[in-house]
Amino acid sequence: MRIIIYGTGAIGGGIAAALTRSGHETTAIARGAQLSAIREHGLTLRTPTETFTQPLDVVATPREARIGPDDAILLAMKGQHTAAALEDLRAAGVVTQPIFCLQNGVGNEPRALRYFANVHGVTVMMPAIFVQPGEVAVQSQPKLGLFYIGRYPSGADSADDELAGALTKAGFAAFTRNDVMASKHGKLIMNLSNIIGAALGHNAPEGEELREAAKAEAIAVFRKAGVSWEDVGMDHPDRKAHMNWTRVPGVEAVGTSTAQSLVRGTGSVETDWLNGEIVLLGRLHDVPTPVNAALTRIGARMAQEGQKVGSVSVADIYAEIDKSNG
Amino acid sequence: MRIIIYGTGAIGGGIAAALTRSGHETTAIARGAQLSAIREHGLTLRTPTETFTQPLDVVATPREARIGPDDAILLAMKGQHTAAALEDLRAAGVVTQPIFCLQNGVGNEPRALRYFANVHGVTVMMPAIFVQPGEVAVQSQPKLGLFYIGRYPSGADSADDELAGALTKAGFAAFTRNDVMASKHGKLIMNLSNIIGAALGHNAPEGEELREAAKAEAIAVFRKAGVSWEDVGMDHPDRKAHMNWTRVPGVEAVGTSTAQSLVRGTGSVETDWLNGEIVLLGRLHDVPTPVNAALTRIGARMAQEGQKVGSVSVADIYAEIDKSNG
Repeated sequence: MRIIIYGTGAIGGGIAAALTRSGHETTAIARGAQLSAIREHGLTLRTPTETFTQPLDVVATPREARIGPDDAILLAMKGQHTAAALEDLRAAGVVTQPIFCLQNGVGNEPRALRYFANVHGVTVMMPAIFVQPGEVAVQSQPKLGLFYIGRYPSGADSADDELAGALTKAGFAAFTRNDVMASKHGKLIMNLSNIIGAALGHNAPEGEELREAAKAEAIAVFRKAGVSWEDVGMDHPDRKAHMNWTRVPGVEAVGTSTAQSLVRGTGSVETDWLNGEIVLLGRLHDVPTPVNAALTRIGARMAQEGQKVGSVSVADIYAEIDKSNG
Repeated sequence: MRIIIYGTGAIGGGIAAALTRSGHETTAIARGAQLSAIREHGLTLRTPTETFTQPLDVVATPREARIGPDDAILLAMKGQHTAAALEDLRAAGVVTQPIFCLQNGVGNEPRALRYFANVHGVTVMMPAIFVQPGEVAVQSQPKLGLFYIGRYPSGADSADDELAGALTKAGFAAFTRNDVMASKHGKLIMNLSNIIGAALGHNAPEGEELREAAKAEAIAVFRKAGVSWEDVGMDHPDRKAHMNWTRVPGVEAVGTSTAQSLVRGTGSVETDWLNGEIVLLGRLHDVPTPVNAALTRIGARMAQEGQKVGSVSVADIYAEIDKSNG
């Protein structure tokens, strides 16, 4: 099973470099400056213990990847780019191949399932940073990251086992789960704070009340909607065993993936697929979610207007929350 | 309540012309040749009994519509254009205004609800044809069309009553419903044949078995998923009372909205939001939907490759169904 990694940012790039080095047949689909840099110099992966540069088989589009019946596809773009990626995969002839959704949130799997029958979820716990085109850092040890893998909406099959095996051989901790979406819902609760960090500035202490409020809304929504979730926070034994956050020398921490999108001025953030998921579920099940609704609008505005990380105040956020209530 | 009609094709154009003529404050959002033609000459509406040309307040974008707190927005673009429209409405400052989804299928309401709290569904039974830029025909009498209107996911409020009143005054039959999505699911079952007509050619008799198979899959899926639906077919008493299909002199029948998209070479069809909805629900609830899955792929390929209406054979469709099963 060749592994095609669609989206070669911090997560996709780190996985592609490690899998290729381990000897697994891998193709990366990248774009823009990242594509050019990898083509010219390979991808440099920096970890707490080593730095290496790995040549990758890299292409610009799914069509160029010439996807065959024995290939598996990992989706590693952010949620706001999933819809276009699914269209491109279908146009490239994908029908029955396994599609693994590595993205944050729980809104990618159902969108993939509309197009493809064989969809899987992956809970990704991998503190990766896009340093510059052609260079990625992974701030984790002893393993490069921790993954739960399973079929969507539930179950597990041989493709899950095969991917878990390949990732384990490449230096990650990877486990197959029969209910992978429970861990993805647990991770989603943690990701609700991404936009708060991006708005106020990395780990701003005055955001604590907002972080707790966003999380409380999610838990209320999950309870009412009957969604089961598994806490995959810092105290989880798998994290302690495999994925300890560890600084990579010389690499500056730039905050969450949402903050990274804003720093890089990509013009979009994934807030609609994180906080927006709680808002949607709340509206369907009649649970108020004014905090997450406001955060979703703030994320959209920051991306659209090119606002900088840390340019929003706590007062701005509370003013936006009042609009939800009004 | 000003009514903003976003998407001024056959349905949106017919509604905008009739509402404006009845004296209701209305703004249409149009694009391309349709926008230019309406700006220059107004919109010509042809019905079985009359032809009139109505000047419209027309703009190119939601931002130009200067949407205020007392406006209501009708979404009348096809499902494949909903995502971009929702982004544009949010960027134009919409937060709490009612959003009415007039589109076929049941996949627009949840997407709107992710962005906006005040979402409504409208079941549209209105045989409208886009004749040419600036000209629309509605083949119905004694009313120009029949609408069921209600809040999403359920219920009804004063905005529903207000819209129903305005449409009634404008020459439509319009009724508020507490469970509007049941009628939208019933209409969806009928719309599953749109792509069959487009693929084989308008009303090709050899498509009958496929039409029945697509419908049977939908009913099996709805039963397993616990989705309630209401038959809104030709024998429904409201149809007989208000919306009888009647030829407009001089206007050629061009088939379903899917066929119209292909004839006009728009590069996309709504199949993912019609047959694709059955496929998604089937995969979530473990009900096989090989026929609708194949039709969805055929719709995507016809749009992408610019294939003509009627260019696909029954044998082609069965070959594609075999791929779903494989």
